[in-house]
Amino acid sequence: MSVFDDDTAVARQGDHWVGHVSPRWAVGANPNGGYLLAIAARAMLADSGHPDPWTVTAHYLSPPTEGPVEVRTSVIKPGRTYSTVSGELHQGGRERVRILAAFGDLAARHGVTRVAAAMPAIPPPEECRPLFEVTPGGSERSPEVIRRFEVRVPADTPWGRQPGDGPFEITGWIRFADGSDASVLSLLLMVDAYPPTLVGGMEVGWVPTVELTTHIRARPAPGWLLGTFRTRFLIDGLLEEDGELWDSEGRLVALSRQLAIALPRG
Amino acid sequence: MSVFDDDTAVARQGDHWVGHVSPRWAVGANPNGGYLLAIAARAMLADSGHPDPWTVTAHYLSPPTEGPVEVRTSVIKPGRTYSTVSGELHQGGRERVRILAAFGDLAARHGVTRVAAAMPAIPPPEECRPLFEVTPGGSERSPEVIRRFEVRVPADTPWGRQPGDGPFEITGWIRFADGSDASVLSLLLMVDAYPPTLVGGMEVGWVPTVELTTHIRARPAPGWLLGTFRTRFLIDGLLEEDGELWDSEGRLVALSRQLAIALPRG
Repeated sequence: MSVFDDDTAVARQGDHWVGHVSPRWAVGANPNGGYLLAIAARAMLADSGHPDPWTVTAHYLSPPTEGPVEVRTSVIKPGRTYSTVSGELHQGGRERVRILAAFGDLAARHGVTRVAAAMPAIPPPEECRPLFEVTPGGSERSPEVIRRFEVRVPADTPWGRQPGDGPFEITGWIRFADGSDASVLSLLLMVDAYPPTLVGGMEVGWVPTVELTTHIRARPAPGWLLGTFRTRFLIDGLLEEDGELWDSEGRLVALSRQLAIALPRG
Repeated sequence: MSVFDDDTAVARQGDHWVGHVSPRWAVGANPNGGYLLAIAARAMLADSGHPDPWTVTAHYLSPPTEGPVEVRTSVIKPGRTYSTVSGELHQGGRERVRILAAFGDLAARHGVTRVAAAMPAIPPPEECRPLFEVTPGGSERSPEVIRRFEVRVPADTPWGRQPGDGPFEITGWIRFADGSDASVLSLLLMVDAYPPTLVGGMEVGWVPTVELTTHIRARPAPGWLLGTFRTRFLIDGLLEEDGELWDSEGRLVALSRQLAIALPRG
């Protein structure tokens, strides 16, 4: 069992599910949002009657800490093609994350395919550098969640971002540090595991997520994934972060977008 | 009062809200999804304690018909900066749309602004052509919802889309046909009011929305809005539609993305 599977495991208990928030996926004092979502989504997926998340939206209410959590699920509309499911992650009697999602079977789809975008062209993982090495302060400053992954970015892009007036961007390879391959559920975490696009481009403190929506478009092939994240509109301290994850066979596996708040450092 | 305000009006009735689905915003037999969302969002906004939608996600369960609807709202977490609210639109004792949203005050934000994208460069409205004129079959084939708007597209882009291997795209100006200006709530409808990106680029029938998420980033200035919509990934009949709405002062006012299913014609 992978560290991810272990740390997102849930067990049915009466009318709800129970899980445990591990400190291994933290950013400072708080668990990573994508990690919390993966715990809840695992329970929702089990109740959905389908094998794959199609679209998952999380609203973050208040951060839980390490320890037990409860997941309450409600199948709003079961369907043959897809089922719509609501989920709630609770800790200490308080709701922490609300999720709304549709689950279906990506392998059972038989429609037209036409892709008008290519995987970003960066050097292969073996020619890129570990994120730690290009991070100011090095690995000691890195949040726990990043240590669960190997992230490699092009050598010529400090922090993987562009200075000047272009979008805030980060592009790099990612895989689990324990050698396990990505699953559809882990994509929900990976789209939130890179450093915020803003970091390095400007002075910011915490960048809390208001809402994160991820479309899972294909089951990932084994091996490295390539993630690219971009912020075009930072307006009055509110920003979107648009993400794409591509698998080792060059297929898009996830599209993500989050709305976040840029809080000043200090 | 504008036709939009009239047709999305809601009234509190005990522990819920009541509204009425008008046939004026239909696509064939079904009401437009953005229109239904606007009815529910109006009630949710009223209960949120804030003036603006920040991010709104709708999951479509089953289409209602013309007639009365009930909106049930639940403030999941009230907050000073933003409140998270759940909403349900019911008709005939059956839930039709589930909504999850955050509401705040866009005018009260005081953070950094840095925009790294420009409004698409198309000719001004007076040099563009009404969508009707470039639509195969003309206005007789146009769905009701489109008649509530004036939509103008560049003369050299039939159906506003590019043939060949590029993304499916449509870009054009939009305003209400009754002369009223856009409000923040109406942006939730406008991002869903253009013809589907796929139409004209390939033979499709209905393109039902699974999920639609819209970020409202600014209150729109009076006048024309410019919308641009793009589909890069049509995979096994599932597609995203990414939208931007810009106002007459050249500011981005909304970012949208939906996951939809391309159903064959017939």
